[in-house]
Amino acid sequence: MASSQYSKTAVSKLGRLANRGTYDFATIHVLINTCPVLHVSFNDPEHPFPVVLPMLGCTGTFEDRSADPKTTAQDLYIHGYVSGRVFKKSKEAADRGLPVTVAATFLDGLVLALAPFHNSCNYRSAVAYGYATLVTDEAEALYAMELITDNLLPERWAKSRNPPTKAELSSTSILRIRIETASAKIREGGPSDDRADLKNKDLVKGTWTGVVPYWGTWGEPVESKDNGCAEVEPYIEAWRTKETSKARNHSFEAIGE
Amino acid sequence: MASSQYSKTAVSKLGRLANRGTYDFATIHVLINTCPVLHVSFNDPEHPFPVVLPMLGCTGTFEDRSADPKTTAQDLYIHGYVSGRVFKKSKEAADRGLPVTVAATFLDGLVLALAPFHNSCNYRSAVAYGYATLVTDEAEALYAMELITDNLLPERWAKSRNPPTKAELSSTSILRIRIETASAKIREGGPSDDRADLKNKDLVKGTWTGVVPYWGTWGEPVESKDNGCAEVEPYIEAWRTKETSKARNHSFEAIGE
Repeated sequence: MASSQYSKTAVSKLGRLANRGTYDFATIHVLINTCPVLHVSFNDPEHPFPVVLPMLGCTGTFEDRSADPKTTAQDLYIHGYVSGRVFKKSKEAADRGLPVTVAATFLDGLVLALAPFHNSCNYRSAVAYGYATLVTDEAEALYAMELITDNLLPERWAKSRNPPTKAELSSTSILRIRIETASAKIREGGPSDDRADLKNKDLVKGTWTGVVPYWGTWGEPVESKDNGCAEVEPYIEAWRTKETSKARNHSFEAIGE
Repeated sequence: MASSQYSKTAVSKLGRLANRGTYDFATIHVLINTCPVLHVSFNDPEHPFPVVLPMLGCTGTFEDRSADPKTTAQDLYIHGYVSGRVFKKSKEAADRGLPVTVAATFLDGLVLALAPFHNSCNYRSAVAYGYATLVTDEAEALYAMELITDNLLPERWAKSRNPPTKAELSSTSILRIRIETASAKIREGGPSDDRADLKNKDLVKGTWTGVVPYWGTWGEPVESKDNGCAEVEPYIEAWRTKETSKARNHSFEAIGE
């Protein structure tokens, strides 16, 4: 089935280079869920600057866990400490919740042209806009904790101590963001040089152009001082090598020259 | 000389785990300048959601280029296309400029504990708050373009075609953000487990704990279809291998177990 889309609104409609953009559920949900750090932004009426926090989170649908994220709008679950500012603000927010913006960005490469003006970056970027409220239902909070833990490292929830204690549950807050709209923007390929520059033979001969690919690497695990497990468990090794290799391959495929 | 500090204000004062925080010029400027993508957030009165844009930028002091960034408050220069929303808004903003927040975040590792509640991430994060205005002085715009180009890849400005053409200059906008205040937060080390979990021998034996380090890798350059330079220039190779190795080393040093 084809992937469904978020509706374009005044806030999510892409301006410049809209041809790089998409409103596609699948693209947006995958970017959010594979991005190891999300940037969450919201307003605090006490000052004029938006607050921006790096946080962990992912998309999910508590009401229907079997829902296909390619065709179903998802909620975004964000995870943190109960006294955190964003959680306080969400608790105070009236009606629909606190308006928040969540950005998931991957840099895939530095694109080098003959002139700095034509330099660029290969990237994938998703931005979701929605209303955040605190999750108060214990079953939904547990669902979201497991979802966020396993979204980063699959199987970790089941393979470490669970369920959480009462104290742990009460000091962790989960925020559910109902996504109002979202968009993604992707830049791929090599440099696009100026014709006049390409005719300048000395410049062309003396200036390397192309893409330096960039990706996130998960390196060799280092055990803690209290670790008592003989070796790094296979699911951890499988995860980190697979993720690194996917990320690396993507940065090269994005060049496509 | 000791590094100077930004003043704590209501907006930059760190709440939770303030012991992980700093207001130090050197720490903050280095995080902003080494982070390959900055997240810039501002408000658009047309809707309730902050806008968040991934952008390129770095700190500088046009009035005194020899100023030491460890002891001198810096401006933040951001670079983009003239029709971009943030540039339009800054042009319209009255008085001091458009209030913007800039976040620079590095994920350094996934910290795995015996229970998901004690999992964490090693990270370095700087957030700067300031007022953005469009740079209208041509000399300052050129200064900032060279600064931003070379901040990402040192020497690239001089080693590619410059200066920009009139058309290039007029379609590139530079935003100068006067930093009002800023803070940074750093998490290092291994997991900190619950005492009760550490006494559970089966759990300890069966659950690997420690840190999976994470860093950004600049891979082997891929030439463009129009490239006419015989080989990747040495300054590019030196930069990418040095940056990758610094990033990798940092993620392991941050563990410190």
